[in-house]
Amino acid sequence: MSAVALRGIVSYPITPFTHSNQVDETLLRNIVENMLRAGVHAIAPLGSTGVMPYLSDEEREAVTEAVVKQVDGRVPTLVGVSSLTTERTVHHARYAQAVGASAVMIIPMSYWKLTDKEIVKHYDTVAKAISIPIAVYNNPATGGIDLAPETIAQLLEIPNVTMVKESTGDVNRMHRLVQLCGEKLSFFNGSNPLALAAFVAGAKGWCTAAPHLIPALNLELYAAVERNDLPSAKKAFYRQLPLLQFIVKYGLPRTIAAGLGLMGIEVGPLRAPLQPLERPQVEEIRTILGELEVLAR
Amino acid sequence: MSAVALRGIVSYPITPFTHSNQVDETLLRNIVENMLRAGVHAIAPLGSTGVMPYLSDEEREAVTEAVVKQVDGRVPTLVGVSSLTTERTVHHARYAQAVGASAVMIIPMSYWKLTDKEIVKHYDTVAKAISIPIAVYNNPATGGIDLAPETIAQLLEIPNVTMVKESTGDVNRMHRLVQLCGEKLSFFNGSNPLALAAFVAGAKGWCTAAPHLIPALNLELYAAVERNDLPSAKKAFYRQLPLLQFIVKYGLPRTIAAGLGLMGIEVGPLRAPLQPLERPQVEEIRTILGELEVLAR
Amino acid sequence: MSAVALRGIVSYPITPFTHSNQVDETLLRNIVENMLRAGVHAIAPLGSTGVMPYLSDEEREAVTEAVVKQVDGRVPTLVGVSSLTTERTVHHARYAQAVGASAVMIIPMSYWKLTDKEIVKHYDTVAKAISIPIAVYNNPATGGIDLAPETIAQLLEIPNVTMVKESTGDVNRMHRLVQLCGEKLSFFNGSNPLALAAFVAGAKGWCTAAPHLIPALNLELYAAVERNDLPSAKKAFYRQLPLLQFIVKYGLPRTIAAGLGLMGIEVGPLRAPLQPLERPQVEEIRTILGELEVLAR
Amino acid sequence: MSAVALRGIVSYPITPFTHSNQVDETLLRNIVENMLRAGVHAIAPLGSTGVMPYLSDEEREAVTEAVVKQVDGRVPTLVGVSSLTTERTVHHARYAQAVGASAVMIIPMSYWKLTDKEIVKHYDTVAKAISIPIAVYNNPATGGIDLAPETIAQLLEIPNVTMVKESTGDVNRMHRLVQLCGEKLSFFNGSNPLALAAFVAGAKGWCTAAPHLIPALNLELYAAVERNDLPSAKKAFYRQLPLLQFIVKYGLPRTIAAGLGLMGIEVGPLRAPLQPLERPQVEEIRTILGELEVLAR
Repeated sequence: MSAVALRGIVSYPITPFTHSNQVDETLLRNIVENMLRAGVHAIAPLGSTGVMPYLSDEEREAVTEAVVKQVDGRVPTLVGVSSLTTERTVHHARYAQAVGASAVMIIPMSYWKLTDKEIVKHYDTVAKAISIPIAVYNNPATGGIDLAPETIAQLLEIPNVTMVKESTGDVNRMHRLVQLCGEKLSFFNGSNPLALAAFVAGAKGWCTAAPHLIPALNLELYAAVERNDLPSAKKAFYRQLPLLQFIVKYGLPRTIAAGLGLMGIEVGPLRAPLQPLERPQVEEIRTILGELEVLAR
Repeated sequence: MSAVALRGIVSYPITPFTHSNQVDETLLRNIVENMLRAGVHAIAPLGSTGVMPYLSDEEREAVTEAVVKQVDGRVPTLVGVSSLTTERTVHHARYAQAVGASAVMIIPMSYWKLTDKEIVKHYDTVAKAISIPIAVYNNPATGGIDLAPETIAQLLEIPNVTMVKESTGDVNRMHRLVQLCGEKLSFFNGSNPLALAAFVAGAKGWCTAAPHLIPALNLELYAAVERNDLPSAKKAFYRQLPLLQFIVKYGLPRTIAAGLGLMGIEVGPLRAPLQPLERPQVEEIRTILGELEVLAR
Repeated sequence: MSAVALRGIVSYPITPFTHSNQVDETLLRNIVENMLRAGVHAIAPLGSTGVMPYLSDEEREAVTEAVVKQVDGRVPTLVGVSSLTTERTVHHARYAQAVGASAVMIIPMSYWKLTDKEIVKHYDTVAKAISIPIAVYNNPATGGIDLAPETIAQLLEIPNVTMVKESTGDVNRMHRLVQLCGEKLSFFNGSNPLALAAFVAGAKGWCTAAPHLIPALNLELYAAVERNDLPSAKKAFYRQLPLLQFIVKYGLPRTIAAGLGLMGIEVGPLRAPLQPLERPQVEEIRTILGELEVLAR
Repeated sequence: MSAVALRGIVSYPITPFTHSNQVDETLLRNIVENMLRAGVHAIAPLGSTGVMPYLSDEEREAVTEAVVKQVDGRVPTLVGVSSLTTERTVHHARYAQAVGASAVMIIPMSYWKLTDKEIVKHYDTVAKAISIPIAVYNNPATGGIDLAPETIAQLLEIPNVTMVKESTGDVNRMHRLVQLCGEKLSFFNGSNPLALAAFVAGAKGWCTAAPHLIPALNLELYAAVERNDLPSAKKAFYRQLPLLQFIVKYGLPRTIAAGLGLMGIEVGPLRAPLQPLERPQVEEIRTILGELEVLAR
């Protein structure tokens, strides 16, 4: 997959569990199939939404294989392979490549803050171990490390590091990336409420879990931008903004699980210590989804 | 002036000084005239660029009168009248109204952080003392107080408080203001590098000192957005972005003075403790302006 | 006054107002006299507590003269002379020296953030204009500029800049100052809840408005540290800590005015936009002072 | 072990590796033995220094068993058992108890930020699974979650949650904990440069990796505080402060490994992505240790 191939709505499936706390592969494949039918442009398992860091190595492998098989080449797959250690990251990157993933996504996870030199060596080591493209993922709110645009630009000099997902929620970071790397840079927005601003700044795509609930609105925003229809893009954006703000405020796994539950799809328990959304917030998302007319009457 | 009348490029003149450190009214009027000739849509004296807080009461009155007279009703004038005390703010607001200003702009200045109740009373007291519209100005980086969107919405319920200038540089604040106050809200962007994102989010105008140096590019960005031409807007934005980033990074009074100097307009000493831009930064802005082809060969 | 002369409890009087919003010099002198009778080691008018930035030049001069005369050399006086402009700072520094102040205190006030070079020139200009000692005051929460320990050390190389008041509330800053300037450094703590930690780190004194309400406890803490009695110091500290936290949380002018009111001393209106403490907070400080047994039954 | 039993210098061994990247148990036991000979009051394996999050489950178990066996009841052992999931935390807590650890330490690790309710349930679940005491560990810089003093107080209501390690480096947090939980609270300081301020605030002990390099100075500081000798405590503190600042600035695993290397003890490669200290920093710690006279001539 060349970097250019990935664009549009990159959809992040959650990882559903059975009541005995096992990964529910059947449901996972159904969720992915629903996304594909809705028309999303790529599938990205094992993101933050997919609670990657809370899964065992075996569970991660199972999710990777199930999703790649289900997608079956219909759209690109972008698999999260991050780990605190370089060794485990290499392991998961190789696994993803072996089962046919289009690309992998790596966030530098932190317990100890890493130096730039350590970060570069980490990516470089993984890059040398695989041949498919790597997307750099910057999300200090979850990963604990903030990659400056200058550091990202440096990582993009590694041959198969070809994409960036920026989730700081600061559009100035995106401007700076474009200035450093040129307009052809394959950068993706990972901050849901920034969807419109990011596309206008030049983002090639939007990495989001929202297609679990409102794929049509997500796709409509992208289509409006693509056809240079700013008023429609703005309208689509402000319409879905309350849901985007909600899922960011209360956390993707909790809110997507609650939203799917309201739509009749039970995705099982969250992995502890994560707990289901509290009752008042469930009512809040019920209202939001109701206004978007995505709940059955 | 109704709130709707103010839109587009709202241009902020610096306050030039003579070598004996007096306000240079002649040069100030020339600077304003140049902006008007370039086609800006409003003039806003005594902003941060105009070093309002560093001027004596008498100097502020002189600047107000000189600018309002020079503009002479050709475009709206928006005069900064903020002060640490409510009493002085009322004084300057009344003065601006008396000499014919279209509207006044008020930032809640802080030494002691103010409670929301104190802030509301402050605006309410000034609003009752004048009949022209008031723009709320939020810029925690200079004023020291950060007005939450919810507080701004509360201030907008005061009858003649009709506009907002948002300078935090966070487009999410603008989204939230639109959600709270509706799409008709007269909000203005005061963070230069956010110019494009803010217009796309629905800003009615852009408050900027950049027209001292690059009025054509500023106006071009606005015009492209107005005609729904996103590719041209993006192109105009990225072209002027290096200058916008530079003037924010090193401070408006210092950088605009240096830029004007390079264009042959000497605006005198800055008011101490502010000092002229250092030599390496002067070279930096020379390069930036050179690439924008606004310096004479 | 040599730098060494200032130590112990440096007491900051509020500026009381008459009901017609004039400085109440008689009450101010009474407040100062009460502090002296209680045994404080220095008096510092026109601090943050004294709402210096909210006063006119004439009011500042009146407060300076009234306090210096009332103290009459019994203890050192440390007068706040800060202003946004260097010119006005020089003016007030000269005035303080002319009426007999022992030393002046200067916080670099910000609207525009200042460069280190601008800050050094600001202090240097004032220092050259007077012959009495200058205390550098670092309090980013009010002044808007954060002086790094390294910058403070640089300022202390100016001949009559001999003292530092650190109010960031971070004891590590004090450690760093001692490392940079040596154990003989005259540094003072301005963060009330840090009183004990600062003395243990080597602070020569504690700049505080608490002696309006609890001078005996303030003096007891200092005395215990001086006689190397850590258990007593700790006991005195934790006893007064709730009041110290309260006055910081709700702001010195509001809380000291409320506390004095509860003790029967009415200090008049605050200067708008500052407003009196809300009723629930008044009850809170009544409880705190009641437990400290400083309210009459 | 009752909560009171743990106090003084709680020493954190690193996890050494062989050149084939296996845990070097022999060297680990030697390092622990050296600490015991120096006189530390407790041993805490699998802390941040021991790179706990970078180890496999099997490695964590091996380290736990090796250290508990080596200590052999001579001092208390406090074993780090944290994991992203509750299930794995329970597993490691049970293991530690089974091999004879005196207590376990748990930091709420984050990828997704946790709600207070999730945090309480996490600790409660682990507490119910074991019978030895639990220490709450707050260190947002590594764990990514900041426990407010009020949340910590709530956790301390769980029966066998009896201790707190505070590593934010803000002494005001410690004051607040004492106010909320009383003076008998077993709280420990985990921010090295805050060692003196924390003891003065009432900390029962200091959790530190510094005894790898300067055990005598660490113990001297504690002893001076214990005998109420503030001048000696201050002297001991400022003497070791440069090393404490250095190990915090560049990270404990990197700096302790470098320091041990300079003392002739090679602890093998760090676990990637962590890399050895850069050359200039090695020279810096050589100078610091040289001035402390702990390097052989």
